[in-house]
Amino acid sequence: MSYAEHFSLKNIPYGIASTKDRPAAVATRLHDFVFFLSDLNLDGSSDVKNAFSQATLNALASIDKDELAKLRTSLRNALGDQSNVSKFGIPIGEVVMHLPVEVKGFTDFSCSSEHLLNAGEAVLGVRSFPPASLHLPIGYTGRSSSVIVSGTSITRPYGQYRDGDEIGFGPSRAIDYELEMGAIIGKPSIFGDRVSVNDADEHIFGLVIVNDWSARDIQGFEMQPLGPLNGKSFGTSISPWVVTLEALEPFATEPPAKQSVVKAYLQDKKAKSSYNIKLSADVLSEGSETNVCKAQLQWISWTFRDLVAQQTINGCNINTGDLLATGTVSGVGDDEHGCLLEMTKGGKVEWELSSGKKRRYLEDGDGVRLTAYAGEGVGFGDCTGFISAAKPF
Amino acid sequence: MSYAEHFSLKNIPYGIASTKDRPAAVATRLHDFVFFLSDLNLDGSSDVKNAFSQATLNALASIDKDELAKLRTSLRNALGDQSNVSKFGIPIGEVVMHLPVEVKGFTDFSCSSEHLLNAGEAVLGVRSFPPASLHLPIGYTGRSSSVIVSGTSITRPYGQYRDGDEIGFGPSRAIDYELEMGAIIGKPSIFGDRVSVNDADEHIFGLVIVNDWSARDIQGFEMQPLGPLNGKSFGTSISPWVVTLEALEPFATEPPAKQSVVKAYLQDKKAKSSYNIKLSADVLSEGSETNVCKAQLQWISWTFRDLVAQQTINGCNINTGDLLATGTVSGVGDDEHGCLLEMTKGGKVEWELSSGKKRRYLEDGDGVRLTAYAGEGVGFGDCTGFISAAKPF
Repeated sequence: MSYAEHFSLKNIPYGIASTKDRPAAVATRLHDFVFFLSDLNLDGSSDVKNAFSQATLNALASIDKDELAKLRTSLRNALGDQSNVSKFGIPIGEVVMHLPVEVKGFTDFSCSSEHLLNAGEAVLGVRSFPPASLHLPIGYTGRSSSVIVSGTSITRPYGQYRDGDEIGFGPSRAIDYELEMGAIIGKPSIFGDRVSVNDADEHIFGLVIVNDWSARDIQGFEMQPLGPLNGKSFGTSISPWVVTLEALEPFATEPPAKQSVVKAYLQDKKAKSSYNIKLSADVLSEGSETNVCKAQLQWISWTFRDLVAQQTINGCNINTGDLLATGTVSGVGDDEHGCLLEMTKGGKVEWELSSGKKRRYLEDGDGVRLTAYAGEGVGFGDCTGFISAAKPF
Repeated sequence: MSYAEHFSLKNIPYGIASTKDRPAAVATRLHDFVFFLSDLNLDGSSDVKNAFSQATLNALASIDKDELAKLRTSLRNALGDQSNVSKFGIPIGEVVMHLPVEVKGFTDFSCSSEHLLNAGEAVLGVRSFPPASLHLPIGYTGRSSSVIVSGTSITRPYGQYRDGDEIGFGPSRAIDYELEMGAIIGKPSIFGDRVSVNDADEHIFGLVIVNDWSARDIQGFEMQPLGPLNGKSFGTSISPWVVTLEALEPFATEPPAKQSVVKAYLQDKKAKSSYNIKLSADVLSEGSETNVCKAQLQWISWTFRDLVAQQTINGCNINTGDLLATGTVSGVGDDEHGCLLEMTKGGKVEWELSSGKKRRYLEDGDGVRLTAYAGEGVGFGDCTGFISAAKPF
């Protein structure tokens, strides 16, 4: 799929691209063409121009939003000029996309009420909210080292899990995806300081699609009481293109009403603090494609602004390149489950691929493709990964 | 306290020091004198020598263990020469010590059986092991951004917590320390690969003291089901000196017998896979010092070698500069509780400072000093931090 319509002149995302002749550097995309920023004779300070040649977006993301706004204008002007497009555009098929940022810290929150209820029901048989989740976005610190770019294979992890009355050890038998989005932090905060929910956008460089791959059997065995570790840390995929908040502002929308009167630090003066983004998940298997979820980002209870406020309320500092993700985005419908844990009710219910084959969790060779599209020529493309067989000992 | 006896010629730790005239760079310590490695005309490859001028130990830690063994020999020879000591030694009082590594990833495990039992009893009223903890080292991913060097103040964090039947919000009322040690990773592993427990030492650069500060009220409210987040991420202190495994080898000892027949990946061929290290915690308050814990590293059930194997069993990659910590180290005695949660039985029991004042958790202005000493001139010095008042809104 080309996603040409995701990358109009209204988008102007940032990513890291290389070609067989050129090392990894900062790039943008217009329809099906990729442009190295250093080719485009853009206006900007030396800090901005030096950032163009880096192999991650971290230097660019750390630049003041005022400067980045000027860069965006300059980029739109450059790409609005057909002679530049002809001269500098590289077909998307000729570039390799890399992990867009060095992910410094990663927190995965759990912002979807429906996911909390469905996951609780699947695992514990109880459809109720974890108490804190009504008052704040709960979450866990994820593993940064294994955040990978879309297209990277995920090797089925080994681990320990319950197997009847025994404790089993072997390749996970319950590999799942999680349909999420994440904010990439630009401007850092200082150790000991808080970032107000009302200032949070100043710190968010842009958004990406996130797949928080999960081994449900390993996770289910390990997570009491300290939360998930090996059941998650074997890999988290993100999309190669970071879409800026500026590009998403036309799609700003109100989040659902909170389930409690939130504390002052989570009271947001911006009404349209969420974004209207359509999400989709497809399982790819032996040439077949099966849509397993359609969801909407604006369903989630807590916004990216809330996540920045929650991360820093205790003085924890955020760094350029941090990833703050939403957790699984789910809706109320049977076709709106953002992971297989929910869709299979904890691995108990089978579902059918478009090929007619049965599935519970993912098999070796299966892939998952997540897409996100805001509308009017602004989207994220996809975030895709395939499961490869466990490495024998 | 000087800790001169911790830093004999048998130790030769690594740290990052600066003076008023010299920028932060790689240093070692002999008794009460600090030496910049670049001053000492040491043997070594250009990689080794280039690492000396870096402001973190990451470059040095990533170098092959064979090369590092040569460097250690070269350093011992240099510091055994009294003319070098006289010429290049800088009194410890004239240097500032910095965070020794850029901490890339941080996992805090829970390796002490007594801590698991005591903490469970304090929080849940049940003295039993979390099921997985009998079979593997359970743990959570910690926040890397807020790992700080000994001497840095900890600001009392704000957060939400249970307050009778209400949900309160304000400065934490239950600030605690946790007496831990941690391994600093040297040689990285590759995404998708496993590191055998028997090869783990190849990846461990050295050990540090760790204080995993905890806000028990915030933690207690948030951690079901995803584990601790804001209750921990406001700060984690580590000692400035990294003591190498080579210096600790004379203190290698057998760990306790495991509580189950562990899976093959945790079966260690090295019998003396733990270290005999004496740990101590003192609360410092208005000039008084009160010992609150004496413990022994070798009490813990899981070794640093186990932690490397567990971290990577699922293919999760480790990076140079990662911190893998033990969790609170506790013993069976009343004076062997490695945190106040245990000592106060969840904040219910008061204890007395040497000044006669009463305490449960830490007050503003209180400090905690952790020390670790292996013996025969090999120790870690201390890891100390003071609590400063919450920043008002």
